[in-house]
Amino acid sequence: MTGDRASTNRLAEEARVARLATVDDSGAPHLVPVCYATDGHAYYSPIDQKPKRTPPGGLRRLRNIRANPRVALLIDHYEEDWRRLRWVMVQGRAQLLEAGAEWMQARDLLEAKYPQYRLMRIGETAPMIKIVPERVLDWSATA
Amino acid sequence: MTGDRASTNRLAEEARVARLATVDDSGAPHLVPVCYATDGHAYYSPIDQKPKRTPPGGLRRLRNIRANPRVALLIDHYEEDWRRLRWVMVQGRAQLLEAGAEWMQARDLLEAKYPQYRLMRIGETAPMIKIVPERVLDWSATA
Repeated sequence: MTGDRASTNRLAEEARVARLATVDDSGAPHLVPVCYATDGHAYYSPIDQKPKRTPPGGLRRLRNIRANPRVALLIDHYEEDWRRLRWVMVQGRAQLLEAGAEWMQARDLLEAKYPQYRLMRIGETAPMIKIVPERVLDWSATA
Repeated sequence: MTGDRASTNRLAEEARVARLATVDDSGAPHLVPVCYATDGHAYYSPIDQKPKRTPPGGLRRLRNIRANPRVALLIDHYEEDWRRLRWVMVQGRAQLLEAGAEWMQARDLLEAKYPQYRLMRIGETAPMIKIVPERVLDWSATA
């Protein structure tokens, strides 16, 4: 493992926010910032209690995943010194986990990473997005 | 205009980095952080000289736009105090501008916003991504 790869892995584990792209059935992408945690294999992102507009049919990201499970998750680092830019993009397939053992493991990971979730509980009635990576691209300005 | 909407507009104009989602011809999303500027109508993102892997056929974002012009651009603000979270998502169509008057206006906007581009010139041989919004969603935790 190179120093640079180690730095990329650290970014993927420690960044506080990622961006999740899904695609609707007409081929239009949809993009939201998400909280997430990883066990080193999959990435988990909850549907939490931050206020959301929920149109009939449910959140757009969930409808999109049901129609097309292919997603991308981007974790990046920005600085005005562009020599320090770096990012990791995970392309993979998303599943919607319902309550159960894996759902609870994911919640534990999220609560360990985000103190906020120890107060704002992630409700077990909400699905958890699980992303199984198929392809990971990483980039850094100094690579 | 509400204070909240004004704050969203300011975010869209002033944020230093956005994330651009494109979709390939198999329906898989692709996601990269981008620098961008707006004239209040369209959004412009250059292909600059930051090092990129350029596979045969060109950058993935350009190949995707040629195959499917539908894109999403996300501009968001993250803080550990989640009451301050907010984001703007622009869904629209992308065009690839070649050298010309609009290309140069876009470069002027980018150079005005990013001092970095006054040193690292945006080469006129590279296309500029122009995004024409069709739908803008904004969200803030306190709305």
